[in-house]
Amino acid sequence: MTDRVIGIDLGGTNIKAGVVDLEGKVVQSGSIPSEVDKGREAVVKNICHAAEKVMKDAGVKPDRIKGVGLGVPGTLDLEAGVILFSPNLPCLNEAPIRDLVSEQLGVPVVLENDANAAAWGEKWVGAGKGAHSLVMFTLGTGIGGGIIINDEIVHGSNDVAGELGHQTILWNGEKCACGNIGCVERYASCPGMVRRMKAAIARGEPSRLIGDFEAADITRAAQAGDETARRIVEETGRMLGTVATNMMHILNPEMIIFAGGMIAAGGFLLTPILDEVKKRAFEASKKGCRIVFAELGGDAGLIGAAGCALKAAGGK
Amino acid sequence: MTDRVIGIDLGGTNIKAGVVDLEGKVVQSGSIPSEVDKGREAVVKNICHAAEKVMKDAGVKPDRIKGVGLGVPGTLDLEAGVILFSPNLPCLNEAPIRDLVSEQLGVPVVLENDANAAAWGEKWVGAGKGAHSLVMFTLGTGIGGGIIINDEIVHGSNDVAGELGHQTILWNGEKCACGNIGCVERYASCPGMVRRMKAAIARGEPSRLIGDFEAADITRAAQAGDETARRIVEETGRMLGTVATNMMHILNPEMIIFAGGMIAAGGFLLTPILDEVKKRAFEASKKGCRIVFAELGGDAGLIGAAGCALKAAGGK
Repeated sequence: MTDRVIGIDLGGTNIKAGVVDLEGKVVQSGSIPSEVDKGREAVVKNICHAAEKVMKDAGVKPDRIKGVGLGVPGTLDLEAGVILFSPNLPCLNEAPIRDLVSEQLGVPVVLENDANAAAWGEKWVGAGKGAHSLVMFTLGTGIGGGIIINDEIVHGSNDVAGELGHQTILWNGEKCACGNIGCVERYASCPGMVRRMKAAIARGEPSRLIGDFEAADITRAAQAGDETARRIVEETGRMLGTVATNMMHILNPEMIIFAGGMIAAGGFLLTPILDEVKKRAFEASKKGCRIVFAELGGDAGLIGAAGCALKAAGGK
Repeated sequence: MTDRVIGIDLGGTNIKAGVVDLEGKVVQSGSIPSEVDKGREAVVKNICHAAEKVMKDAGVKPDRIKGVGLGVPGTLDLEAGVILFSPNLPCLNEAPIRDLVSEQLGVPVVLENDANAAAWGEKWVGAGKGAHSLVMFTLGTGIGGGIIINDEIVHGSNDVAGELGHQTILWNGEKCACGNIGCVERYASCPGMVRRMKAAIARGEPSRLIGDFEAADITRAAQAGDETARRIVEETGRMLGTVATNMMHILNPEMIIFAGGMIAAGGFLLTPILDEVKKRAFEASKKGCRIVFAELGGDAGLIGAAGCALKAAGGK
């Protein structure tokens, strides 16, 4: 009887793997270094080793595994099971990763973009449980995302849908690292927040923050009463509320979920998001659309990858 | 044998109806006044009359009709077959229009939003033929649209998806009539173009246009060499290229189609759209994504409504 799926969240630094039951509960999980510098063969071996280790630790034999879901950052060719381009895993560019891992593990492997996998995880057992359509923004160094419509991940014609951070909120604004202009990522990602905070300080706005600091420091300063930090976090929330409204008008989903390290800011971030949506969005789009923070934290990718494997195997 | 479908495009002024064959060819079409001022019963009677008239003119008996597609402007409840709110057809607000028309005509009726129907028409037999996913912008008094993914219209959780004109391109910009801020509709719709042109003239920019004029006059002036009109049309194209890029990054469709009266501007509008997309969009999103003008003109809604009826009847 197959009653377990494996989820793998492949990153440039670490590989997280987990044994997940058919209700989305992580039975066992672990993490090992990716060792990208050792080349493709080593990384593939590490992926398989991570999967085998959590199976062993959980006392689960391969014949109980329905399948393996592999979440990977970068652009993929899902039909071919190939990584086309992954900035943080250069040795895997053009690697037929799905079949390489499947052959070594002897079980079916499903490839998925990591942000899509995380969105699927939240839908399966997290903040999006019960929703049939949702849009998830992942807030970090960049702003990524995943879109689910009618219980299906939207992949697009080249498997690159969901680049939610590269929608333009200032069409004549600043150039984004991606080449586009005025992307929300340029302003509301962690580096964008830091840049705006530093500019505010340089303009003479008062703050306890000095020298080098990160987005998390801005959030903490805001929570501790730093007025300029509060304004920067609030403005970030308003920008995110603007793109949340865009998604409501374009796709009219049941839910919008925000995920990633930045949501540690809590109400300082969520309140301006909600205020902005309230101000901007059509009544009909707002009706029935919940806007929430993610619930699965760093496990979303792993759980979602497992969920994708389960779905591919004919589960839910 | 059923070998015909009826498409109806219900507007605030006229009702267009057509007999369409199973390949999407309009066999017979006609238009009668909606007579909105005469109230709900009169409009429903007119819809049925329009359908019956084209059937009679085409010599097609009801037993050859697979179904009727009814395209309606406004917010709808598709499952219930009800018009929730239609600014131009106030007497039909909350009318169970699908069943009212179906009972009188004695054939199955499918309700669809008019912009979605037009997108479906272009996909069926117009500029989008052969595409499985596309985004269509309709440029007119407002900017509307329709989204098709995996051969299905994206309706959203409340049937209000596709409000493509109300995505924000200037998050701190001007207030839009809808209540949102900096919507592309505010700037790049026909009234938006006129407003920007008048502001340019008021600033002293040279133009042959004086007094009251419409968007079509700006386009004609641009074609005739008016430099300010050219700049306004070009800027409109760049704004539309910005939101086209948004859609490519969010949904990664096979095609983006622009429709509506404004596309009469031809290359003066299409060239800056394409230039802007070239400048802004990710390579992977651009790959395989065609950006074109619509082909069906004013018949798109009627043909698309017929296509929706055919699809509902199990056709393609």
